[in-house]
Amino acid sequence: MAVVDLKKADATQASLHRIFTVPEAPDSTLGRIEKEISENLNVFLQTHIAAREKPLAEIEKDFSSAALPENPTFVSDHTHFLLNKLVAQSVHTSAPTFIGHMTSALPYFLMPLSKIMIALNQNLVKIETSKAFTPLERQVLGMLHNLIYDEPEPFYDRWMHSANHSLGAFCSGGTVANITALWVARNNALKPDGAFRGVAQEGLFRAMKHYGYEDLAVLVSERGHYSLKKAADVLGIGRDSLIPIKTDNNNRVVVSEMKAKLDELKAKNIKPFAIIGVAGTTETGTIDPLSELADLAHAYGCHFHVDAAWGGATLMSNKYRHLLNGIERADSVTIDAHKQLYVPMGAGMVIFKNPALMTAIEHHAEYILRKGSKDLGSHTLEGSRSGMAMLLYASLNIISRQGYEMLINNSIEKAHYFAGLIDAHPEFELVTHPELCLLTYRYVPARTQQALTLATADERETLLAALDDLTQFIQKRQRESGKSFVSRTRITPEKWDRRLTTVFRVVLANPLTTENILQDVLAEQVEIAKQSIISSPQIRTLTDHILTRHNTE
Amino acid sequence: MAVVDLKKADATQASLHRIFTVPEAPDSTLGRIEKEISENLNVFLQTHIAAREKPLAEIEKDFSSAALPENPTFVSDHTHFLLNKLVAQSVHTSAPTFIGHMTSALPYFLMPLSKIMIALNQNLVKIETSKAFTPLERQVLGMLHNLIYDEPEPFYDRWMHSANHSLGAFCSGGTVANITALWVARNNALKPDGAFRGVAQEGLFRAMKHYGYEDLAVLVSERGHYSLKKAADVLGIGRDSLIPIKTDNNNRVVVSEMKAKLDELKAKNIKPFAIIGVAGTTETGTIDPLSELADLAHAYGCHFHVDAAWGGATLMSNKYRHLLNGIERADSVTIDAHKQLYVPMGAGMVIFKNPALMTAIEHHAEYILRKGSKDLGSHTLEGSRSGMAMLLYASLNIISRQGYEMLINNSIEKAHYFAGLIDAHPEFELVTHPELCLLTYRYVPARTQQALTLATADERETLLAALDDLTQFIQKRQRESGKSFVSRTRITPEKWDRRLTTVFRVVLANPLTTENILQDVLAEQVEIAKQSIISSPQIRTLTDHILTRHNTE
Repeated sequence: MAVVDLKKADATQASLHRIFTVPEAPDSTLGRIEKEISENLNVFLQTHIAAREKPLAEIEKDFSSAALPENPTFVSDHTHFLLNKLVAQSVHTSAPTFIGHMTSALPYFLMPLSKIMIALNQNLVKIETSKAFTPLERQVLGMLHNLIYDEPEPFYDRWMHSANHSLGAFCSGGTVANITALWVARNNALKPDGAFRGVAQEGLFRAMKHYGYEDLAVLVSERGHYSLKKAADVLGIGRDSLIPIKTDNNNRVVVSEMKAKLDELKAKNIKPFAIIGVAGTTETGTIDPLSELADLAHAYGCHFHVDAAWGGATLMSNKYRHLLNGIERADSVTIDAHKQLYVPMGAGMVIFKNPALMTAIEHHAEYILRKGSKDLGSHTLEGSRSGMAMLLYASLNIISRQGYEMLINNSIEKAHYFAGLIDAHPEFELVTHPELCLLTYRYVPARTQQALTLATADERETLLAALDDLTQFIQKRQRESGKSFVSRTRITPEKWDRRLTTVFRVVLANPLTTENILQDVLAEQVEIAKQSIISSPQIRTLTDHILTRHNTE
Repeated sequence: MAVVDLKKADATQASLHRIFTVPEAPDSTLGRIEKEISENLNVFLQTHIAAREKPLAEIEKDFSSAALPENPTFVSDHTHFLLNKLVAQSVHTSAPTFIGHMTSALPYFLMPLSKIMIALNQNLVKIETSKAFTPLERQVLGMLHNLIYDEPEPFYDRWMHSANHSLGAFCSGGTVANITALWVARNNALKPDGAFRGVAQEGLFRAMKHYGYEDLAVLVSERGHYSLKKAADVLGIGRDSLIPIKTDNNNRVVVSEMKAKLDELKAKNIKPFAIIGVAGTTETGTIDPLSELADLAHAYGCHFHVDAAWGGATLMSNKYRHLLNGIERADSVTIDAHKQLYVPMGAGMVIFKNPALMTAIEHHAEYILRKGSKDLGSHTLEGSRSGMAMLLYASLNIISRQGYEMLINNSIEKAHYFAGLIDAHPEFELVTHPELCLLTYRYVPARTQQALTLATADERETLLAALDDLTQFIQKRQRESGKSFVSRTRITPEKWDRRLTTVFRVVLANPLTTENILQDVLAEQVEIAKQSIISSPQIRTLTDHILTRHNTE
């Protein structure tokens, strides 16, 4: 019995050893599995559906046990499970008909290249575990710095590879990038001063007592990304101190309102340490007047951060980069490469104009990140990090600035086309015009549009509420039917007296999305709406009632 | 001319379109490139060297221009560049001779499986962009919760897939996990109370005034990971408020010292809101007495966090999991899957005992993370995130608990073997014994060991300082020669009167590291040391002087 156990243990050990060993032959089991995965994925990626119709509760059944698997599974068996239960039940976020979120198609060359990242498994926290990946990541940060700030060559020669400096931080995404920017801004605003050793060392409570402020504040448009509230919470500033400033008809922050708020804060002895400009709001795709915000930040001595997580890639377009004028005056800029720079999920960046700014968050440790080293880990919120920068590096080289310009221009122009389509359609209402490649709209039957102009206040509210429900219904039904996907959000359009209104939200960043697809999306929505209005007659009845009253008056 | 430009633009556009399209045939250009990459990586991964000898300044030359590439590059050309300049100049972190950091070999099945993650490019922030990946990630968090807390099945049925709850957060690594745990602890310690709406909303300054504390504190062993200081900075607590507690001869925190400190803080009206136990210190691999710390946390009403980023995987071993006894009483636990769970870089987790704890950091947004949704993004510090949990899921299934146990047991026993080897060698000094698979040691010539026992205080200090230099020299030279890699750190051994001492640090988690390799590592170090002592005679001369004096006395 003991002998049998021992033999079994030996066999298990040998098989464990084998799974860590590089397979010798391309026709090995793993080689065959890889081929099968590739073929399956190719079919999945060529099937232009957004998702299959299956309720989440059904899917959860396949992932319901919290028990750790006690016995090993063959790689081939588990691969089949993943293909059947995970891949087949996944959302095809890169389908040309998936136009709802800021996820897009990936250039196909990234599939083979990402093998390098996975297989080498470098850790960018320090040079000892990353070697050439560290200079590569520093170069990528330099290129992005160059894209935003366009400093002369000697600047990059001096700073790009400088130990103890960093032009920015590569991180998992825009949220960590925004937190990092505000962390730097907070630490610089409450920096060491005489006997006070700075907020990093002594904490916020003592910092506030030392500087004698009543409170801190960060100012941003009411359309600012939700990650900024999270940042205010994490950094100990408090969500209340992230002060939302009104936007105009075009969803741009009203600079005079921000100025008035700054004066008000000053009078109350509250320190506004940062102003944030949004370059591409998440919900409407709008760009704040960055130059004017830069003036304001300068006048009031605030850190000027631009959240260009989504819109920053527009700088690649010589035709449209003027939309972001003023960004070159920002102290820091967030850009997500996994959005309009078309690399896989998990590639955010924050870039700092001044290479010395990040020393406010510098840290060291004995076994790692020693002073004077070129380790990137001494200026990042995260610790261990993968070599993701490599995929952006490859894309920048293979696609090039000109290629990116074409992608950006196409996206913007496609959004203009779609806006025209919506505007010309009698049953749709364009809610926000696209400035970049994002727009919002909703379905309103033509007769109801007319009725809304004739309705009493109560009737109008009833209709608008019913339209909100209808928009939500259409969006859900369209998603569930799996042919295409638009997202939805709630915004406060001027036209509807800033009433919180549910709208469709469309992001047109996928180069494979055709004009035909856009026509089909509208046609499908009309179809769903018609069925819904027949089955739930509230909108129709009230519309009829209002129009009849009008015609008999 | 205009026509030519237009044609050129059309051609560029067509080629852009093509890069986003799935290649039809396996013998396509991309298919050939993928084959070449795989073959190249297989050679790299089979070459058992830690790195090639090339100065960083040389490598930087290949990554020196901050100019954005203006024109596209062929995928094949760029692939060759990457293979020659990036791969060839990378550190082979999974080489069996790379025993210096917490990066290890990856099971080879992860290479094909990671294709699924990259190609599907899901975004776990919300179900609409992840679908089956969300239940999968929730299941992985459930399995890890089960591994730590072993709750009965109905617990997981109730909470694992519950909207508005989360058993933890998957994140990029241990640093974000530790920040998340302390964020939750801080927000719960300074929670809403009467008119005060909580620190998340009102910020730290008001929270402190409301609760009337003089200051906050977090207590941890002096061996705590540097990310905890970063967390204290980010969260506005201040690095000073992370209070290091003395460790004993075995590098475990002295619980009585921690208790004394808690009393001292209490007397000063300072609120210690969290106690951290370390389960596998980064520098010595030691585990704190977790049960006693749990008692203390309970008695003083603190959040009890265990940083098991590295050591947590030991729970997979029925033979050794007793070393972490008491971890099941932690309010939160950090575990890195990219360490001893053998998945690629970028897979950290924080697990919370109580599913309600994370509501302290809950957040929502209009277009995403609506209340009542099962979106994982409402309880994570990060926003958009990749489907990395899938690779851990696959490893848990394919390797299984039994397989992991074998890996963990082998690693620990290999460390004991290596410790024995060092102990038996006349020229080495074992500085910290391995509790898990990590140990520290240094080279000290046998005669110098004798001389140290006879030296005057001044001589001793001179010798120890010279030995620090020697350790550093050996480590660097061994790294540069590229055959093998150990890391180094500085610790304060009891034996040397807590003098800050430079030591080699070895992590033996790679299943392919053989006993022969360990013998070779020592032999190489002896060789390097001998050359160094000949060329820099300080240690030899002083040793001779002391021993001669002794022999003539």
